[in-house]
Amino acid sequence: MMIVDDVENGSLGPYQDRPRTFPNMRSKPYTPLIFRILMGINVRILVILLLLGFGYVFYIGASTSPIIVFVFSVCIISFLLSIYLTKWVLSKDEGPPEMAQISEAIRDGAEGFFRTQYGTISKMAILLALVILGIYLFRSTTPQQESSGIGRVTSAYITVAAFLLGALCSGVAGYVGMWVSVRANVRVSSAARRSAREALQVAVRAGGFSALVVVGMAVIGIAILYATFYVWLGVDSPGSMKVTDLPLLLVGYGFGASFVALFAQLGGGIYTKAADVGADLVGKVEQGIPEDDPRNPAVIADLVGDNVGDCAARGADLFESIAAEIISAMILGGTMAQRCKIEDPSGFILFPLVVHSFDLVISSIGILSIRSTRDSSVKAPIEDPMAILQKGYSVTIVLAVLTFGGSTRWLLYTEQAPSAWLNFALCGLVGIITAYVFVWITKYYTDYKHEPVRTLALSSSTGHGTNIIAGVSLGLESTALPVLVISVSIISAFWLGHTSGLVDETGSPNGGLFGTAVATMGMLSTAAYILTMDMFGPIADNAGGIVEMSQQPESVREITDVLDAVGNTTKATTKGFAIGSAALASFLLFSAYMDEVASFANESFKQVDIAIPEVFVGGLLGSMLIFLFSAWACSAVGRTAQEVVKEVRRQFIERPGIMDYKEKPDYGRCVAIVASASLREMIKPGALAIISPIVVGFLFRVLGHYTGHPLLGAKVVAAMLMFATVSGILMALFLNTAGGAWDNAKKFIETGALGGKGSDSHKAAITGDTVGDPFKDTAGPSLHVLIKMLATITLVMAPVFL
Amino acid sequence: MMIVDDVENGSLGPYQDRPRTFPNMRSKPYTPLIFRILMGINVRILVILLLLGFGYVFYIGASTSPIIVFVFSVCIISFLLSIYLTKWVLSKDEGPPEMAQISEAIRDGAEGFFRTQYGTISKMAILLALVILGIYLFRSTTPQQESSGIGRVTSAYITVAAFLLGALCSGVAGYVGMWVSVRANVRVSSAARRSAREALQVAVRAGGFSALVVVGMAVIGIAILYATFYVWLGVDSPGSMKVTDLPLLLVGYGFGASFVALFAQLGGGIYTKAADVGADLVGKVEQGIPEDDPRNPAVIADLVGDNVGDCAARGADLFESIAAEIISAMILGGTMAQRCKIEDPSGFILFPLVVHSFDLVISSIGILSIRSTRDSSVKAPIEDPMAILQKGYSVTIVLAVLTFGGSTRWLLYTEQAPSAWLNFALCGLVGIITAYVFVWITKYYTDYKHEPVRTLALSSSTGHGTNIIAGVSLGLESTALPVLVISVSIISAFWLGHTSGLVDETGSPNGGLFGTAVATMGMLSTAAYILTMDMFGPIADNAGGIVEMSQQPESVREITDVLDAVGNTTKATTKGFAIGSAALASFLLFSAYMDEVASFANESFKQVDIAIPEVFVGGLLGSMLIFLFSAWACSAVGRTAQEVVKEVRRQFIERPGIMDYKEKPDYGRCVAIVASASLREMIKPGALAIISPIVVGFLFRVLGHYTGHPLLGAKVVAAMLMFATVSGILMALFLNTAGGAWDNAKKFIETGALGGKGSDSHKAAITGDTVGDPFKDTAGPSLHVLIKMLATITLVMAPVFL
Repeated sequence: MMIVDDVENGSLGPYQDRPRTFPNMRSKPYTPLIFRILMGINVRILVILLLLGFGYVFYIGASTSPIIVFVFSVCIISFLLSIYLTKWVLSKDEGPPEMAQISEAIRDGAEGFFRTQYGTISKMAILLALVILGIYLFRSTTPQQESSGIGRVTSAYITVAAFLLGALCSGVAGYVGMWVSVRANVRVSSAARRSAREALQVAVRAGGFSALVVVGMAVIGIAILYATFYVWLGVDSPGSMKVTDLPLLLVGYGFGASFVALFAQLGGGIYTKAADVGADLVGKVEQGIPEDDPRNPAVIADLVGDNVGDCAARGADLFESIAAEIISAMILGGTMAQRCKIEDPSGFILFPLVVHSFDLVISSIGILSIRSTRDSSVKAPIEDPMAILQKGYSVTIVLAVLTFGGSTRWLLYTEQAPSAWLNFALCGLVGIITAYVFVWITKYYTDYKHEPVRTLALSSSTGHGTNIIAGVSLGLESTALPVLVISVSIISAFWLGHTSGLVDETGSPNGGLFGTAVATMGMLSTAAYILTMDMFGPIADNAGGIVEMSQQPESVREITDVLDAVGNTTKATTKGFAIGSAALASFLLFSAYMDEVASFANESFKQVDIAIPEVFVGGLLGSMLIFLFSAWACSAVGRTAQEVVKEVRRQFIERPGIMDYKEKPDYGRCVAIVASASLREMIKPGALAIISPIVVGFLFRVLGHYTGHPLLGAKVVAAMLMFATVSGILMALFLNTAGGAWDNAKKFIETGALGGKGSDSHKAAITGDTVGDPFKDTAGPSLHVLIKMLATITLVMAPVFL
Repeated sequence: MMIVDDVENGSLGPYQDRPRTFPNMRSKPYTPLIFRILMGINVRILVILLLLGFGYVFYIGASTSPIIVFVFSVCIISFLLSIYLTKWVLSKDEGPPEMAQISEAIRDGAEGFFRTQYGTISKMAILLALVILGIYLFRSTTPQQESSGIGRVTSAYITVAAFLLGALCSGVAGYVGMWVSVRANVRVSSAARRSAREALQVAVRAGGFSALVVVGMAVIGIAILYATFYVWLGVDSPGSMKVTDLPLLLVGYGFGASFVALFAQLGGGIYTKAADVGADLVGKVEQGIPEDDPRNPAVIADLVGDNVGDCAARGADLFESIAAEIISAMILGGTMAQRCKIEDPSGFILFPLVVHSFDLVISSIGILSIRSTRDSSVKAPIEDPMAILQKGYSVTIVLAVLTFGGSTRWLLYTEQAPSAWLNFALCGLVGIITAYVFVWITKYYTDYKHEPVRTLALSSSTGHGTNIIAGVSLGLESTALPVLVISVSIISAFWLGHTSGLVDETGSPNGGLFGTAVATMGMLSTAAYILTMDMFGPIADNAGGIVEMSQQPESVREITDVLDAVGNTTKATTKGFAIGSAALASFLLFSAYMDEVASFANESFKQVDIAIPEVFVGGLLGSMLIFLFSAWACSAVGRTAQEVVKEVRRQFIERPGIMDYKEKPDYGRCVAIVASASLREMIKPGALAIISPIVVGFLFRVLGHYTGHPLLGAKVVAAMLMFATVSGILMALFLNTAGGAWDNAKKFIETGALGGKGSDSHKAAITGDTVGDPFKDTAGPSLHVLIKMLATITLVMAPVFL
């Protein structure tokens, strides 16, 4: 398997007698504490414990609502399915030893970074938990809480516990994403030696495993919290809390999830792009060696980056999206049910959990529909993997429409307004269509089959400068259509809800916001499948890297190249999907915030009037926060990449034998440099995002106190939140699309257009790609998380502003 | 004078026996129709006509208010002074014939473009005037108008007439700016052969001429309209209009001014940067010839661009800023005076006119304080021109503080609240300080004496990509401090006004918004001097180009280089100043809009509640408008520059003798290409800015009509306006600062740092500079105009939304 067949490197010498490539890099394999404890326990005891756990879960579920039992059952089945998937993936072979060695080095790097990163994050989370505890212990209780007998202390512990659980689950979601991807990558490489279809299947099932775990954990975590609080607080029994107020207790969970996701995305995003940019700048541009060439000392860091940046971070990101969206929809459902005096509000409250339970089912069907051809021994011609994934997506989306309609009939039917469920089903359809259109728009602007990227590629022929100008223009322009689509769907979903027939005591319609919430759920109703497609990307990318580094024959490289290209497209479309759902969800989160403030302050809070100077200033500060955050995220990548460039240059100078394969580059040093730099760099933007809304809210609260404006702090924060959301959506769309377009313009030129590889156009296109890297993989995705984290932080920190 | 002494061009051959350089380019000198009519009239008749005009003006002034007489007198004196300045400049010699030839070619190009551009703009303005007429003829009259006897027809003609007058004055302001700069440039070049100080003085006085005309025309135009309406409509006589409602009739003037300014800035901005980028890409980057080298076929187009883009467009821009700010402050002053039942409201209404009258006086003193040294025959060592300009600025600003205090005591003293004037004087001080701080922040981020630009330059050493990433980050980051400053000044000015003691009938304080208005006036109280410094830049730049092209000795080039560098700094700081005032003014314009809508609809309109989905969508669309507009402005430059690149490459290939000075490049073709392309390209973004608020307002008005939401259209437009303003401020700050920083990072490297000229760092820095060009000189300044145009268009088009 040591056939050297790299046509790009004429100078490639024989490389047979090298030593085991990375002997020094392997440290003791890392297993998280919880795994070690679990493994230390006797299997029988473990089974008994698990059964006891299940028993508890079903007991509290049954005491709460049959809907919860349904949700639990689906989640547990999908966990079992995910265990099957991971067993299936792990049963595949790891290929020849040189592949395994590379994979081990990647695994060590990724796990090492993960350990340090999550160590830092958990310290910060504990610190923040103490702050929250302090705030809640000193705030006044709300009238509802008083009437239900929940004291200050109980409410403080509930919030902190929910926060910590959310943070823990988010961390586990990230770990699972990375755990499977560092194991699947080499198996995909190995499978690629046999057939493209098999490689595709391995990558999809590995992605599917983490997608099911991420979505399932978000759903079951919230369901367990909900059921526990329900039983513990004796909800709905006389003299205690009403069920419609229960969802407000869950906001801590959402905040914990977004807190971890923000730092995971920032740290991982900085890591992956700093390594990538640094490796490319010296490798591709200065030395002219291909991507993932084993002579590049930063290549392992680059491959590690795919796992910690794309897999772990995206897992945490989607976990947080789903958690935040479920909780805000539950709050809105509860509020609406209460206002409209619906007899059994649990259907409205638990609707989001059911939607995502069905999401697990239908996505599993979609994932399993992608099968290996029977006789994998015969090498079939490479099918278009995109078509295969699309077929699975079509299956999923058809099922989604059906199950969504069924769920609305099941849970949202009320005798008060017999046709309301139909309106809400249409809201869900609006969401599903929005998701479709978003994916289409993203593809139009980032795929080189269409006009925009071709124009961008053409502008590379007049130089670096015109390429950048064209890319920036393209990115800025690409914000227009998504905004129009979002506008139409917000308004139409709102009106569908508004006209659903649900009215409050005074007879005025009250279902508008819940309609928007249902549209958001519709958009996210295939989240697990989307996440699978997204996870597929970095696994395929990594597999390609391993194939290149272990110098497999060209035919193998061809297969992984095709998979990698498809992965780029799915990654870009997932981002469109993520930002679309963030945009829709943002509107729910405002409303949840306003409900929360009204409930704390025991005062109506229905308006955010930006004609008041302070409120307008809040908006100005919110938009500015987005610009500053993006600036710091991008410059962090730039600075870290410069450190990589210097290190790689130093190694090339000090070890001149590297270029002739006579000396081994010090991969470990690059990994260590990127890891420590990205951990250092993630703090500043992350802290900015967390501290600034708190500071602004507190300052204006004090100002309002002295100038006789009650609720000024809360109002200013609301404006800050809304302006930040709008600017954040636009900025994220700009950054993601520009980055994706630059990447594909380069790929288009590499297909031979406009002079092809090595031409001046290609050099200009590489510059664009380099600029796009931190845009699309660091700042852009971090903004998705930021938007939702701002909403959850204001929810949790509301007592500070009042 | 034909000494060839260009050290940069070793290959420079003798160039003596060339023919007259641009014989084919001179067309019949262009004089606008109005000038031709004036020149056709006998001088005595002209004097009589002028005196009659003055008589009329003073008659209506005297019938209106003594304040108006004061304003008229100051304006007329400053016009006389500006005539003196222009005579002084024109009396300077045009230097040797080769300079004059180049200057003539520039003049022809600039005037030709101006003619075509303003031809297009005037056609569009007339079309729009008809649309406005139609709208106003079919709308219902407001109760105030009914009570004052102004019918629909009268109000329609008043608005259209004001619009056309505003457009005309804006056009004249632009023309004047360009007229003097194309004449002054060669005189500065010629003076630079004698002494740096003299060159500086010529450039400053030329800039001062157009600054005084621009500011004076804005003031006198509004004053004449105000006085005419006052006399004609019999304001304040029983049964007719109240003086406090009069300023609302002036909004058409502001809209006309911003309409023309938008297209002037777009067309001019695209022209200047397309020519610049195109010339640089082929000249500097591909062929390695210096800037402004006569062998570059695009060099004349580039020099023409400075005049049409920077001089004409900036003249129209500042004219529009001042007009919009005066009118909105007058509206607010009127509203407040009415609410607080102030006996003589004219002081509050006319205050902005007086502030700008004093602006003319003190800026004139500042301009005249820059004097030539006595013995210009002795070549003194070059003083730092920045220090000289700063000294003049210090004189102006000290006088501004004094006169501002005086004006507030004179006009804003009322017995109702005896200390109110002091509060308002402090508001003015807040504005002046804000302007100072803004200028300082802009300098910090764009001057290579400070950290940010040095870091940016350093990042050029790792390549094109890291340079762009660092520049984008720097630009995004640079939005933070200005936003904080603006926030503090909005809130503090509002509170100073709020606590001024002015209360309405119910006893609640009412001076807050007017306080913000006074702060804006404070900020703009040295506008004429600032504009002088700004105009100085392109004139010096052009002079440098002429010196280079006519191949003057190195010593002359050195002088113009120093002036050019100073011009870059003053240009950047003016932009900071312009955006700061736009940010402050924006808040006035909202309030004026809300007052206007309330008065039209005869319904209270005090809140813009973004918790309503439609209103939130309006905000989303407003922010999106900014992104899309910036995209189209930048891509217009990119596309046009590519046409220039192709043309220049074609000429170099078809006329190989150009590089050895054996063949003359076809400058005219480049001028023609850029002119026609930039006129074509300015339409799309301009039309977007004008049409989208009208369409959005109208659509939501219809939606509101069918869903039972009165005023929905007006509210959605208000949110659109506010979000667009916030995003526009941030985007403009980002674009301006990033552009300026890239420019100066390149200049820093050219001083010899990081490898100096020709190094790889320098090449990367040139890429950044190219990217920054459309950012800082097309999209950024157009956004300043856009922000204010959106406010005036919504004011004028309000009847459509109701």
